[in-house]
Amino acid sequence: MGRRGEHSKSEIECMALEAAEAIIEGEGFDALSARKVASAIGYTVGSLYFVFRNLDELIQRINGRTLDQLYAGLIEALSDCRHPQQCIYALGGGYLAFAARHPHRWRMIFEQQPRDDNLSIEIYQEKMDRLYELMEIQLKALAACPEEEVFIATRALWSGLQGVASMTIGRKPDREEEQWAQKLSRHLIGHYLAGLGTTQFNSRVNQSVGRLIDCPK
Amino acid sequence: MGRRGEHSKSEIECMALEAAEAIIEGEGFDALSARKVASAIGYTVGSLYFVFRNLDELIQRINGRTLDQLYAGLIEALSDCRHPQQCIYALGGGYLAFAARHPHRWRMIFEQQPRDDNLSIEIYQEKMDRLYELMEIQLKALAACPEEEVFIATRALWSGLQGVASMTIGRKPDREEEQWAQKLSRHLIGHYLAGLGTTQFNSRVNQSVGRLIDCPK
Repeated sequence: MGRRGEHSKSEIECMALEAAEAIIEGEGFDALSARKVASAIGYTVGSLYFVFRNLDELIQRINGRTLDQLYAGLIEALSDCRHPQQCIYALGGGYLAFAARHPHRWRMIFEQQPRDDNLSIEIYQEKMDRLYELMEIQLKALAACPEEEVFIATRALWSGLQGVASMTIGRKPDREEEQWAQKLSRHLIGHYLAGLGTTQFNSRVNQSVGRLIDCPK
Repeated sequence: MGRRGEHSKSEIECMALEAAEAIIEGEGFDALSARKVASAIGYTVGSLYFVFRNLDELIQRINGRTLDQLYAGLIEALSDCRHPQQCIYALGGGYLAFAARHPHRWRMIFEQQPRDDNLSIEIYQEKMDRLYELMEIQLKALAACPEEEVFIATRALWSGLQGVASMTIGRKPDREEEQWAQKLSRHLIGHYLAGLGTTQFNSRVNQSVGRLIDCPK
């Protein structure tokens, strides 16, 4: 059991997560194995399974940490914006910057879903909801929409950003690739929000009432 | 070499591709191996490598065929639409229907990129361009845009659809999941196109000229 006893269970857990992340960042997630992680922290594979049920759980814990870091990055990205529209651009910019900086770990969230569905729900749901909420707040501030419209608009915009990232940011993104992603994202957000605005504009013309941007039925 | 000689090289190639596709459709692409494919067609693994350089090439050939089938599905989806806007909805609907019908093969296109970059370019570029072109034609018919704007708009819309599909359609999609994907897609396309229209509407107000929908700078 190698050096078991030198570290607590939670210390081994953290060491393993960090070692695994370094392997993924450096070589991609295909290169991840229990053997490599154990060897990197000087423990046996057996010790690793003392801490994680299986490799699947280790992967989902890493995905959870990546989502936490993404969330922190987006909070940071929001620190300078004032107007909701500007903040939505900031969310898009922050998301793409994160994907470009950590391409392997970002892809792993979507491409390495656990086989055990319960494990997935357990780890992801809250963290995903928290990301959606960042967009929801901005859309609510921007538009007088029924709850259901804000719900759909939030998921449509996040999906759009996700699609832009996955279609543009490869496994070894360079500056040019990220700039193209940012350009596409601003284009998509801009026209989408203008579209929400159009409907309001028409409804304002018809009803002589309105807010800055409104949502259609 | 098993039954080598009974089939020509191109016959073995087709048999292997079809057997591999059946394995992927049934069990997901993680279940794919040269051994399984060889066994399914009654040949040895060695015979398989007589036809494909490696598993990577087999995977990319399958991805190429999936893109061909997707293209055919989209052409079919376009057969009933008349107005460009209606045709763009049809492209979105057709894309999501395909992803929901073949979740594993559709995901494989994006998640199983070849390690050999040349192989990727060789197989994908033309087939991807052909898909983009279907959207480009509709956007050109809808909007008097400079070439570059149509180029960006095409990629923004495809990315949006791709994101909707990847955020909603899981590995075992049911009817409800597909309906939700279709709803999000129509929402995104509708507001995006309205956004393109808004700008034109404003420019028509300002310049007293215009087409049905125009593109902003």
